[in-house]
Amino acid sequence: MQALVLGGCGFIGSHVVDALVAAGHKVVVLDRAMERYRAPLPGVEYVVGNFSDKMLLAELLAGKDVVFHLVSTTFPGTANLDPTADVTGNLVSTLALLETMTALGVSRLVYLSSGGTVYGRAPNYPIPEDFPLNPINSYGIVKVAIEHYLEMFRTMHGLLPIAIRAANPYGPRQGHIGVQGVVATFMRRLCDSQPLEIWGDGRVVRDYLYVGDLAALCLAAAESDHCGALNAGSGQGLSLLDLIALLSEISGQDIHPLFKHGRKVDVPYSVLDITRARKTLGWQPQTSFHHGLQNTWDWTQAERGGRGISEQM
Amino acid sequence: MQALVLGGCGFIGSHVVDALVAAGHKVVVLDRAMERYRAPLPGVEYVVGNFSDKMLLAELLAGKDVVFHLVSTTFPGTANLDPTADVTGNLVSTLALLETMTALGVSRLVYLSSGGTVYGRAPNYPIPEDFPLNPINSYGIVKVAIEHYLEMFRTMHGLLPIAIRAANPYGPRQGHIGVQGVVATFMRRLCDSQPLEIWGDGRVVRDYLYVGDLAALCLAAAESDHCGALNAGSGQGLSLLDLIALLSEISGQDIHPLFKHGRKVDVPYSVLDITRARKTLGWQPQTSFHHGLQNTWDWTQAERGGRGISEQM
Repeated sequence: MQALVLGGCGFIGSHVVDALVAAGHKVVVLDRAMERYRAPLPGVEYVVGNFSDKMLLAELLAGKDVVFHLVSTTFPGTANLDPTADVTGNLVSTLALLETMTALGVSRLVYLSSGGTVYGRAPNYPIPEDFPLNPINSYGIVKVAIEHYLEMFRTMHGLLPIAIRAANPYGPRQGHIGVQGVVATFMRRLCDSQPLEIWGDGRVVRDYLYVGDLAALCLAAAESDHCGALNAGSGQGLSLLDLIALLSEISGQDIHPLFKHGRKVDVPYSVLDITRARKTLGWQPQTSFHHGLQNTWDWTQAERGGRGISEQM
Repeated sequence: MQALVLGGCGFIGSHVVDALVAAGHKVVVLDRAMERYRAPLPGVEYVVGNFSDKMLLAELLAGKDVVFHLVSTTFPGTANLDPTADVTGNLVSTLALLETMTALGVSRLVYLSSGGTVYGRAPNYPIPEDFPLNPINSYGIVKVAIEHYLEMFRTMHGLLPIAIRAANPYGPRQGHIGVQGVVATFMRRLCDSQPLEIWGDGRVVRDYLYVGDLAALCLAAAESDHCGALNAGSGQGLSLLDLIALLSEISGQDIHPLFKHGRKVDVPYSVLDITRARKTLGWQPQTSFHHGLQNTWDWTQAERGGRGISEQM
């Protein structure tokens, strides 16, 4: 396949590119900047630019068999601060992408949606894809609007979209600026001997998916003829307290988290039912939580070491 | 109450203004243009401007107890042609309104949503408000996104929003440019001795609500302390063939409709369950379909006569 990966230099994008390259596909990446944590991969074409640049997009779409849309200009935890920027940067830009793909006859699209926010206040059991979409924060509201437009373009213009509703992905190369993944944030703070902060009582349950498994699902989805939404999770829930116990074991440190007042818009429980991805694509998560965390911890320490050296120079 | 009516010179807006004035409330209207079909009402302050003008909005919001947001820059039948304009003109502008209201401490908002599009492919029974929102066209996708943001602003910023999910409104002062209401379009064509065009076999069932009843519901909603979504329908479905039979009776004309190929994105059946509005507000439709159509027919003929005279001058 000839693949265009929008956001291919980001955390998830870089792993999707790895999966594509390993499977022998030809890859062009469009992103705002080059990868932060490693050198460009040989054989991959990197283009630095904005995915809302319609002319550039049209040029890059020529001859492509599949587009991976992994760009988000906002984060789940902070999109509420500026909903207008969320709508403009993500929804409006994605509509431009859909229109350009339609105009050029490129129909296969793998879109990274959000299993943690599109369902809103979820029930106390793993959520299937046909559960009503009732998002309670801006990030989820925009993802749902985009998913609705994907279906509209499918009906009206023959687009062949898949929306991957990813649980909380974690793994090597995830940023740790405090608003992205809790695993990356916690590990960074452990490295820096800073206390781990927990919003609420630590019993908030989430579904953490190793990024390599998510990338494998994105690839399997693109290679299939499935259309519509697919949950991408580990299939099991983990509380923050569970996570901290595992981090303590892996890092060999005692951890005394700092408990802070819970935020209003947090979903108390969110675990995805991944039956559909299992049955449709034969996919399932390969990486145990312990193994995934160990990989991530090793990378975090190595990256910190590298940064420490460059800072001393 | 001191009310600001955004879109108060439009079809539904002008009837909401009538209801507010009749109940003794003080009304300021903001609209792109003055009313098309009648002179300004005494005692009502009209401001011509764009509701996405944040400075103007801030000025007009001062001292208001309630805002009626009845503006739509698109129509259900044509919004798909330019989803980006739909998102920009409606969603982005509404976010600016919500932010300005929050900043100024004006919390009561009556928003006109769309009972005919937010649910998407509806079941074969009257749809209650808690039915999943699964819109299949741009108009509905944007309305749903706005409703989600209303709830987010309610949780985060104390907004007190009501979303009125209106069925197909009809009545005097509705435009008849072919993309708005079918009642207005049909009546205009009857006046002009043109054939009535039907997409599909005429069995598409809709819920038609007399605009005076819709305005009464908007007023009752504003005066209540209810928040959240409310369906606004007649409580009964009517097929296009039923509608044509009634129009034939009222106009005294034989009607031979022209059947055209059905459109892909039409919802086959859409009738609203109005139990919640009945129970919560004690509201219910007062105007029989025959009476409402008769009023509309009388107005259409009078308006056409007036236009005929001015065209001869």
